[in-house]
Amino acid sequence: MAKNLTRKILEAHLVEGRLTPGEEIAITIDHVLLQDATGTMAMLEFEALGLDRIKAQLAVQYVDHNLLQTDHKNADDHRFLQTASARYGIHFSPAGNGVSHQVHMERFGVPGKTLLGADSHTPGAAGISMLGIGAGGLDVALAMAGYPYHLPCPRVLGVKLTGRLPDWVSAKDVILEMLRRYGVKNCVGKIVEYYGPGVESLSATDRETIGNMGTELGATTTLFPSDENTRIYMAAQGRESDWVSLHGDEGAEYDEYAEIDLSALEPLIARPSSPGNVVAVREVAGLKVDQVIVGSSVNSSFRDLMAVAKTVEGRKAHPRVSFHVNPGSRQVLENVAARGGLIALLKAGARIHEPGCLGCIGMGQAPGTGEVSLRTMPRNFPGRSGTKDDQVYLCSPETVAAAALKGVITDPRDLAAEIAYPRIRDPEKYLVDASSIIHPSEELSRTEVLRGPNIKPLPEMGPLPETLEAEVILKVGDNISTDTIMPAGNKVLPLRSNIYAISEFVFSQIDPDFHKECRGKGDLVVVGGENYGQGSSREHAALAPRYLGVRVKIAKGFARIHMSNLCNFGVIPLVFRNPGDYDVLSKGDRVVFREVRRHVENGDEEIPLEVNGRSIVTLLKVSARQRRLLLAGGALNFVKQGLLL
Amino acid sequence: MAKNLTRKILEAHLVEGRLTPGEEIAITIDHVLLQDATGTMAMLEFEALGLDRIKAQLAVQYVDHNLLQTDHKNADDHRFLQTASARYGIHFSPAGNGVSHQVHMERFGVPGKTLLGADSHTPGAAGISMLGIGAGGLDVALAMAGYPYHLPCPRVLGVKLTGRLPDWVSAKDVILEMLRRYGVKNCVGKIVEYYGPGVESLSATDRETIGNMGTELGATTTLFPSDENTRIYMAAQGRESDWVSLHGDEGAEYDEYAEIDLSALEPLIARPSSPGNVVAVREVAGLKVDQVIVGSSVNSSFRDLMAVAKTVEGRKAHPRVSFHVNPGSRQVLENVAARGGLIALLKAGARIHEPGCLGCIGMGQAPGTGEVSLRTMPRNFPGRSGTKDDQVYLCSPETVAAAALKGVITDPRDLAAEIAYPRIRDPEKYLVDASSIIHPSEELSRTEVLRGPNIKPLPEMGPLPETLEAEVILKVGDNISTDTIMPAGNKVLPLRSNIYAISEFVFSQIDPDFHKECRGKGDLVVVGGENYGQGSSREHAALAPRYLGVRVKIAKGFARIHMSNLCNFGVIPLVFRNPGDYDVLSKGDRVVFREVRRHVENGDEEIPLEVNGRSIVTLLKVSARQRRLLLAGGALNFVKQGLLL
Repeated sequence: MAKNLTRKILEAHLVEGRLTPGEEIAITIDHVLLQDATGTMAMLEFEALGLDRIKAQLAVQYVDHNLLQTDHKNADDHRFLQTASARYGIHFSPAGNGVSHQVHMERFGVPGKTLLGADSHTPGAAGISMLGIGAGGLDVALAMAGYPYHLPCPRVLGVKLTGRLPDWVSAKDVILEMLRRYGVKNCVGKIVEYYGPGVESLSATDRETIGNMGTELGATTTLFPSDENTRIYMAAQGRESDWVSLHGDEGAEYDEYAEIDLSALEPLIARPSSPGNVVAVREVAGLKVDQVIVGSSVNSSFRDLMAVAKTVEGRKAHPRVSFHVNPGSRQVLENVAARGGLIALLKAGARIHEPGCLGCIGMGQAPGTGEVSLRTMPRNFPGRSGTKDDQVYLCSPETVAAAALKGVITDPRDLAAEIAYPRIRDPEKYLVDASSIIHPSEELSRTEVLRGPNIKPLPEMGPLPETLEAEVILKVGDNISTDTIMPAGNKVLPLRSNIYAISEFVFSQIDPDFHKECRGKGDLVVVGGENYGQGSSREHAALAPRYLGVRVKIAKGFARIHMSNLCNFGVIPLVFRNPGDYDVLSKGDRVVFREVRRHVENGDEEIPLEVNGRSIVTLLKVSARQRRLLLAGGALNFVKQGLLL
Repeated sequence: MAKNLTRKILEAHLVEGRLTPGEEIAITIDHVLLQDATGTMAMLEFEALGLDRIKAQLAVQYVDHNLLQTDHKNADDHRFLQTASARYGIHFSPAGNGVSHQVHMERFGVPGKTLLGADSHTPGAAGISMLGIGAGGLDVALAMAGYPYHLPCPRVLGVKLTGRLPDWVSAKDVILEMLRRYGVKNCVGKIVEYYGPGVESLSATDRETIGNMGTELGATTTLFPSDENTRIYMAAQGRESDWVSLHGDEGAEYDEYAEIDLSALEPLIARPSSPGNVVAVREVAGLKVDQVIVGSSVNSSFRDLMAVAKTVEGRKAHPRVSFHVNPGSRQVLENVAARGGLIALLKAGARIHEPGCLGCIGMGQAPGTGEVSLRTMPRNFPGRSGTKDDQVYLCSPETVAAAALKGVITDPRDLAAEIAYPRIRDPEKYLVDASSIIHPSEELSRTEVLRGPNIKPLPEMGPLPETLEAEVILKVGDNISTDTIMPAGNKVLPLRSNIYAISEFVFSQIDPDFHKECRGKGDLVVVGGENYGQGSSREHAALAPRYLGVRVKIAKGFARIHMSNLCNFGVIPLVFRNPGDYDVLSKGDRVVFREVRRHVENGDEEIPLEVNGRSIVTLLKVSARQRRLLLAGGALNFVKQGLLL
């Protein structure tokens, strides 16, 4: 069988299971990527494993998400991550160096390797043909400890690219076309592999844009071949020796097929408030714009910023428009400055920010009430900008530049009458500053790990007892999201490395005193309806309630990732066999799970419980591996016991 | 009598009173400066006056203080200020243009004119020989409306400068020497005028540093002659035609004298946590440094940033040090970039921020717990950085650069062995971008003023009644600061344009429900001890309690600025004639001020009150002008009534 590139890379890394879509597989992880928002918890989880040194080939801790530093907590987090990286053998990229995805491509990425990142946009590594997958902090901590990563074997969607992009149309429009076709759910469980003659017209950073934002398709990751353009990029970074050529076999087979004629694409835009709400720019042209932002996680490369700089050069942004530029990395900013792009942007009225994620994750740059914001970022979920009822549109740098100049949404092709399309060539040799990273060393391994007062070790959590007696502490309805279980936002996020403090916000939207009610009650049960735990993948929604005593959740149904997180932290996710039994349970009830440990060990799907003199049957639908995690009281305990995952 | 320059400028602007130190005078105001943190309230106050257009020669609204934009409020404030500026004829400098003091010098300042600014560092205008004075929002609003500014006639301290600064010693060390000699209180009520042969060795931006930070001496303002260096600076800005030569008369007399031999100065540093804790850098050399910041309100000029850039060029900041650069203006950043300084800074590891105040007012850049931060900023008050128990030191750009490289506090002269001192010359012609300001116009005057949901017009407040009956709502002890009356911080500051919302935080440190207790009770009295209302000059500490009903404050003594603010907002500041009467009043008492209006009108110093069947005498020690404000129920009412101030 002619193999696609995805299969080749998966085969080369497979350590458990078969490459049959849907079956659980385990793959070895070559590189590990951490960022500061998720990294503090991942680092604490790694520490909880008790290892002296990471076992992965290479791990890099980036500081890019929270650079606001409104109090000590932010700087303390940075210092903790820096000293822990030194201590455990992790490369450290300090605040100001740029966005993890951009910098990892510049300095570390190698075609054909696997990259597990504690960031959902890790698939941006597709830019240089790495298999980059986003995961929760605990999975990433385990990968640092040398453990393989488990995932359901994905289907592979082969997307054949033909033609070349017209003027004023760029890589962002390719991924917006994918989102127009597939929406935000129809690539769940898939890897999107691009191939065909159109691929060679896309540079490494173009491909990064397509891979990074491919996350919004719901895809597991995205892959491109490693070709001459990949070699050119790596040579320009002074790393040609890391390059290898990688392609799917001639006539490779895919589980599904699609085709995009690049020459037929036009400027596209995602309307509020989903990356899947894609229409042609011309359909919304004329709408007043108050803010534009180029950069952050995607479209923050040399090409992207220079395309905007050359478009606005000698012109002035519309006075209504607040015009922001977020360079992807220090290197991008240096190279744009060296080629005159920075002064062109400044003179056009741009606000040049330090390299980082910034407004892309709601850390600053919030638009005003009712204002329209056009951004090159990958996401426009409601309120993510920091402003309630925000009106955020996602589009290409070209479309951003046109709106900056005109003050209204404008098809950038309409600029052609006055401006020649700036077709930007990447530098043959980037100004490269490899010294911006702090590399691990024997000497640094003796660094003392500094923990500010807000950084606390993880609480210890015991194994599953033979029989569990617990009180129903809360009963909620359908579609409870992880935002309800464990809120985020400026107030709560900075507490993510302090389970004791953050647990005071568990279910606080429902009952601000929930954490107080839990105290001294021993094991607890939360009862939920359908689709319990939907939304964000945050693992704190499992860990923090577990710390408060929540040992069992019983629901009519669970969202997939939350269910996985519950197993990771030793919380048993049970489903009512008879949904009507939801009505039997009430707050305050005492529930007994007799011989629950034996049931879990035996692989029983049926887990009986007794309440108010009645007996109810619930179902435990998890893998054998997850049962082992539950027995141990969570994955950390399991690994610490020295058992093989 | 040979006149000093201060006297000449005051005489040219005097409209009331005599130039006798301590007597109240009124001067005309030529230029008005607003920034966003105080500007929203000043703009609302201006609007409350009901004018269609400003009457001052020139007013400029800068956006430089709060650029974090963590939610809609910040961007809404910016939009409100932009549209209100357009509507009322005010120049508008958008976010990203830079710090008011730097930009006002670049684009607007004229030697010999008066500048009233809603920012305490307005005396930085000394850089081009303007008489710049910081004031409360209401005073600035009145100046926009064309009213003169009232102040006690200051004494003039003449400081004769001789010699030239040695290598590695710069303007910051001059003002630190002044702070070493005078501390933070001994120039209260004075204007500091520099003269003598040493003046000519200081550039316009050097003088800005000395004037700006002269605020920390407690001085009313600072003045320098307008000479050849002033002409060179203004010519480099393309504004030579605005230059005039200004000097004190030969042998001019001063109220006090001092002399500084510049050639004898050494690098100085203000230790935590007062700008007055000045010692030689060598006395604290060797202390580990975690963060350095060059820029913000002072030392953010071309020379300052280039001096750091040239010192660190080809070198790398110490890995422990988080190295921040806050350019003073877009123009500074452009010119530093054009001369290679930006890339030198980036390659050395600096985090380049958009031009603005940033960490100087605790908007980001907070150091970690226990960390040492060296900054070129003017203030290091406890906690101002955003971090409790912070360790902030103030010093020159040279001392910052040395610490950035060495990771410990280092006398910059110790760098001489390896680095030639970079004596920076300002550009003969700056890259100038005059279009970065939005100038008022006939067309813009038809702009609709946009108010986000957090921007509310000022509440209406009635005139003083004939007889006042009021309830004692709170009794506090000695030394209550305006921070206790009206807290600041990230949570409360963004509510400054919403008196209704911010009033819920009045006295919240003492009683979170204070605002609720006030409701429906009519007029209220607060009783205080000695030095009531010390600390920050914030006018919200008068206005917000007034909105809640506080019509009278009776104390053993008042801090000067708070007493003035109380009069401005129609709150009667009474002092116990017999301090022992403090014990007579208790919370809940009903107090009657019989014929209080007649007493105030008549100029009576004694104001009697009745409580619990007893009679007490209190004293009203305010000027005739302030009595008129009290009668009207505040300055806004007074002006609206068309009465002459």
